[in-house]
Amino acid sequence: MVRAGIVGASGYTGGELARILSLHPEVEISVATSRNYAGKKISQVYPHLAAIADIICEDLQIADLVSRADIFFTAVPHQTAMNIVPALLEAGKKVIDLSADFRIDDPEVYEEWYQPHTAREFLEEAVYGLPEINREKIAAARLVANPGCYPTSIILPLAPLLKNGLLDTETLIADSKSGTSGAGRSAQVGSLFCEVTDGFRAYKVGEHRHTPEIEQELTKLSGKKLTLSFTPHLLPVSRGILSTIYGKLARNIEQEELYELYSSFYGHEKFVRICRPGTFPATQYVRGSNYCDIGCKVDHRTGRVVLISVIDNLVKGAAGQAVQNMNIVCGFEESLGLDTVPLFP
Amino acid sequence: MVRAGIVGASGYTGGELARILSLHPEVEISVATSRNYAGKKISQVYPHLAAIADIICEDLQIADLVSRADIFFTAVPHQTAMNIVPALLEAGKKVIDLSADFRIDDPEVYEEWYQPHTAREFLEEAVYGLPEINREKIAAARLVANPGCYPTSIILPLAPLLKNGLLDTETLIADSKSGTSGAGRSAQVGSLFCEVTDGFRAYKVGEHRHTPEIEQELTKLSGKKLTLSFTPHLLPVSRGILSTIYGKLARNIEQEELYELYSSFYGHEKFVRICRPGTFPATQYVRGSNYCDIGCKVDHRTGRVVLISVIDNLVKGAAGQAVQNMNIVCGFEESLGLDTVPLFP
Amino acid sequence: MVRAGIVGASGYTGGELARILSLHPEVEISVATSRNYAGKKISQVYPHLAAIADIICEDLQIADLVSRADIFFTAVPHQTAMNIVPALLEAGKKVIDLSADFRIDDPEVYEEWYQPHTAREFLEEAVYGLPEINREKIAAARLVANPGCYPTSIILPLAPLLKNGLLDTETLIADSKSGTSGAGRSAQVGSLFCEVTDGFRAYKVGEHRHTPEIEQELTKLSGKKLTLSFTPHLLPVSRGILSTIYGKLARNIEQEELYELYSSFYGHEKFVRICRPGTFPATQYVRGSNYCDIGCKVDHRTGRVVLISVIDNLVKGAAGQAVQNMNIVCGFEESLGLDTVPLFP
Amino acid sequence: MVRAGIVGASGYTGGELARILSLHPEVEISVATSRNYAGKKISQVYPHLAAIADIICEDLQIADLVSRADIFFTAVPHQTAMNIVPALLEAGKKVIDLSADFRIDDPEVYEEWYQPHTAREFLEEAVYGLPEINREKIAAARLVANPGCYPTSIILPLAPLLKNGLLDTETLIADSKSGTSGAGRSAQVGSLFCEVTDGFRAYKVGEHRHTPEIEQELTKLSGKKLTLSFTPHLLPVSRGILSTIYGKLARNIEQEELYELYSSFYGHEKFVRICRPGTFPATQYVRGSNYCDIGCKVDHRTGRVVLISVIDNLVKGAAGQAVQNMNIVCGFEESLGLDTVPLFP
Repeated sequence: MVRAGIVGASGYTGGELARILSLHPEVEISVATSRNYAGKKISQVYPHLAAIADIICEDLQIADLVSRADIFFTAVPHQTAMNIVPALLEAGKKVIDLSADFRIDDPEVYEEWYQPHTAREFLEEAVYGLPEINREKIAAARLVANPGCYPTSIILPLAPLLKNGLLDTETLIADSKSGTSGAGRSAQVGSLFCEVTDGFRAYKVGEHRHTPEIEQELTKLSGKKLTLSFTPHLLPVSRGILSTIYGKLARNIEQEELYELYSSFYGHEKFVRICRPGTFPATQYVRGSNYCDIGCKVDHRTGRVVLISVIDNLVKGAAGQAVQNMNIVCGFEESLGLDTVPLFP
Repeated sequence: MVRAGIVGASGYTGGELARILSLHPEVEISVATSRNYAGKKISQVYPHLAAIADIICEDLQIADLVSRADIFFTAVPHQTAMNIVPALLEAGKKVIDLSADFRIDDPEVYEEWYQPHTAREFLEEAVYGLPEINREKIAAARLVANPGCYPTSIILPLAPLLKNGLLDTETLIADSKSGTSGAGRSAQVGSLFCEVTDGFRAYKVGEHRHTPEIEQELTKLSGKKLTLSFTPHLLPVSRGILSTIYGKLARNIEQEELYELYSSFYGHEKFVRICRPGTFPATQYVRGSNYCDIGCKVDHRTGRVVLISVIDNLVKGAAGQAVQNMNIVCGFEESLGLDTVPLFP
Repeated sequence: MVRAGIVGASGYTGGELARILSLHPEVEISVATSRNYAGKKISQVYPHLAAIADIICEDLQIADLVSRADIFFTAVPHQTAMNIVPALLEAGKKVIDLSADFRIDDPEVYEEWYQPHTAREFLEEAVYGLPEINREKIAAARLVANPGCYPTSIILPLAPLLKNGLLDTETLIADSKSGTSGAGRSAQVGSLFCEVTDGFRAYKVGEHRHTPEIEQELTKLSGKKLTLSFTPHLLPVSRGILSTIYGKLARNIEQEELYELYSSFYGHEKFVRICRPGTFPATQYVRGSNYCDIGCKVDHRTGRVVLISVIDNLVKGAAGQAVQNMNIVCGFEESLGLDTVPLFP
Repeated sequence: MVRAGIVGASGYTGGELARILSLHPEVEISVATSRNYAGKKISQVYPHLAAIADIICEDLQIADLVSRADIFFTAVPHQTAMNIVPALLEAGKKVIDLSADFRIDDPEVYEEWYQPHTAREFLEEAVYGLPEINREKIAAARLVANPGCYPTSIILPLAPLLKNGLLDTETLIADSKSGTSGAGRSAQVGSLFCEVTDGFRAYKVGEHRHTPEIEQELTKLSGKKLTLSFTPHLLPVSRGILSTIYGKLARNIEQEELYELYSSFYGHEKFVRICRPGTFPATQYVRGSNYCDIGCKVDHRTGRVVLISVIDNLVKGAAGQAVQNMNIVCGFEESLGLDTVPLFP
């Protein structure tokens, strides 16, 4: 059994890691940290885990933490992660970091969108943990930068077209809609039930911090420096991201050819499902699962392609992808512990 | 008192007309038709109207219908409307038609997206009922084609930029999200609570019938024949449409200038509210009201403008705008009966 | 015009008072206080009020506050109210207090369920502001204790039976379900969207502070000291309370007789609607309105009556009833400013 | 591998059986029937099952059906089940029937609440499939009558008190609230998203067909013929039932003693979790799982006990309990395939 540590167990991502890992046959959760809930059982923080995961949350110094697990999931905010991860790595541990701190290759870019970076020396070795794109590198990594939820939902659908040079890279627009769990479990007026339910809004229009992460990875895939317009919106649902992505086709392409391209690009992938022509994905069909479902449509009238992708932001967009990365890092079957069925209705 | 008839009173739009008209000081609902609920009080169809509107729904032949009101709201599906409206007009009545049948100027275009048109002779005189754009023509009309919900949410925010030639008209994309009341009150699996709640999906990608209506009106505003990409989505809310609209700027423009343009274009309009720079609208802030709230953002990184608009699809997107048109047609104060306050939370 | 002051304008009840009063033809909001949002327009606190109510929130000392209005709505938490209300009364102002501080006649009882009472001398003159029961007293009051939301939903349906001695008063049970706006707009984890949506729970079982208020008023109605079991639950809706109330019938009674009793007891009341036999109310049919809808059912199998009532907790359960009380106090038509139509769907 | 057949695969219960069985290590779904979706893959009926369960739905005559599986789940409406089950039994198959047709021992009672019974000869051997109460009988049964969702949520919490004679059996009231999936996947106006969301209502007050089933089982547990008041309500959630149950205590009992009673009664049960004193269950904490969580409270003021139970109506209230019964019938570990973790948020 691999001993896994969850740093930041009381957030929604931490709770989701506990949910997934509690069913993983090769892993035991050996330590869970939380400053706010230190001394409490995880099942007091998350009553759904009663009788399933009863580890007690602790508030630990790094020195006490490092010996308690073989691999760590750091599910803490950016800036906090960069203060913890180096010590874990230096103690010889593997780390799957779920923050943004090690996703951006260029520290200048990071600092432009976030704040000063104090662990720049680890940026180069960090591997961007999108298994469908970077599987080999992840296998060899000791630090995996787990992708952001929005980036996962945008990079996966664009990869087949960008890799094949089929898009005009100056025309990319991603209009994304996320469930409210993406805002975390912190108490703030904007996340209250009454503020969110029966409503819908855009936020951080043109300014969301996931923008440089998305552009970086799309640039790698296309081989051309590109920018994209990215607009996040807040959905009155707990879980789920749907991204609607637009781009001008570099050449004419028929619907059937497009479908074949996606089917063959992702045909061997366990966690990517391509919708048949004429059908499109819905967030409720991936709820609680590690799937990314993708639909694609050629709009001949406008010369554009429209891509629609959905993920569960807490699973493929966070904890599930982190466990998928852990499986690769540890040499397990990649889908171990992740073969749940989406919960619908 | 003007006697108003509601043809199709049992749908959500019909119920909303009853709600709004029951508070209108110059109007009485003199007749309400429904095939399915004939003989029932409107308050049995819609219990929220108990003690407010107690008219009995009838299933009438046109000949019996025409004499029963001075002005008619036809809140029936397309194709049904074209079988009713001509007789009402020929009897000298005014008609606010809430279907799509008289919105498209060119019958060829209509027939390409809908089905054969059997009342082509009325297309020319029908006035597209968007008061903020066509107020004068509406005042003189006997047949007002009340705009579609999506088109209202897209044309209003684009008008200031297109009228001023500030957009590259080959780059327009409208990504729209609608509440489920837009699907009507007919019993179908796809509209069931369990299919919609806690979920989100796109539908009719690149194929929605509102597309030619939007393109027609935008073409008039810009003076250039244009196409746009239009993707509708289904929100797990009852009411509300939010449209996120993208376009390349024809020239550089600063945020403050953009805001001034919108403020001055719509400053005198009672039902259009412009969000201050840095803030964006939310559907819950217009719930139950006739407002269209608009936010605008210049994204200098990409050279695009992003427009965000919200309406209540049943009010400004249907029944409220219809009453606004009726007020104009009848010479009433344009906001009469429509000065409700949005219901939040 | 009566000048009305809202003390505590930034909570949901304060915002609802602003919504309702902004349409009241005889009232202007002359002052609005908020500690947290001092200096901000009410439309920045509540964007739905943009272009409707643009008063600026202030953080005022009592001395500055008293002169600014003729009548005050104190929409602040219990314990805070008792520190403000006496000074307002002493300055000759009328007060509609929406807290619990002046609802309980017996200070011992108040202190048992709340905390020490520092304004006991005003308890006697305070009138319990349920107009359908206490209309005459309210008209003469200078301090109206606006009822709690749960009590309103329980006292109104029980009054006809208790006044007529038709219930065994030892068998009363009220199982109530409230929308989340009842928890207020304060940022707390338990009110977050993700904690509430798609879920349901009971809370404060047998311990809710509205219990003594309900028992006090029911005791007055029945003339017998009584206790009741009261269980509140949290609904994943913004607005609305539904109370299901059980009691043993003191004598057999037929369904039709029961319906007649309710119809005649409340037949003249504008804001109480009795559902026909076989139909029951739903919270969505009173949304945004001041109605209390009541359904009643004799269950001959068990010898019990089942009463079902619904209100909008922010309207008839708080701000709407407060304005109804203000109308009575000021001598206005009781429904002035309150004749909105429920918003459905 | 056991070959399992799902009769009625396209309803929500059928889809849930497919979800659960697709992960069961000892079962394969060998046949799935649906009249409306014959010829379609189950993943076209339920897109969340894509790449997981791809069996094709068939419309089969009984003669063709019987040979296709070893055990059958009949997930069809009452009255339909009684036409199918006898033939399956006569062919030597085991049946878990999810309808109401074999739950009521007394055919007179059945016919009073439902319609004529055409398979009375099987009533005596049918075993009421509540494993926590009837485990031994289930193990020996060839026909298991899977309990109703409401009855499961009411019988389990009452069993410890009734078995120990601690309740006055003339005072029982169950106030239950169910998610909308309980209404099934049939297209009807009352189940539309816009009719249900942001609302709450009671229905079939005092008349719900689960009443005789509940009374029958409670009577067996208590040894005394009893009636109870039962009021179902419709929650705006997909999944979940919460029942709030009231009864007079036969003797005084302290909170701690009550908690001990429940803990010891259910301590060995995998799927029943008892909430610690002062805490109560919530439907979202059992979502997607086979748990029944129970909280109990002594209210000394009124001499009543209040019990609160939650289940997922599609799992412990239907498909999950059916698989639990199948495991017992087949001699598998009782929790096989059911050890999922509730999905929260």
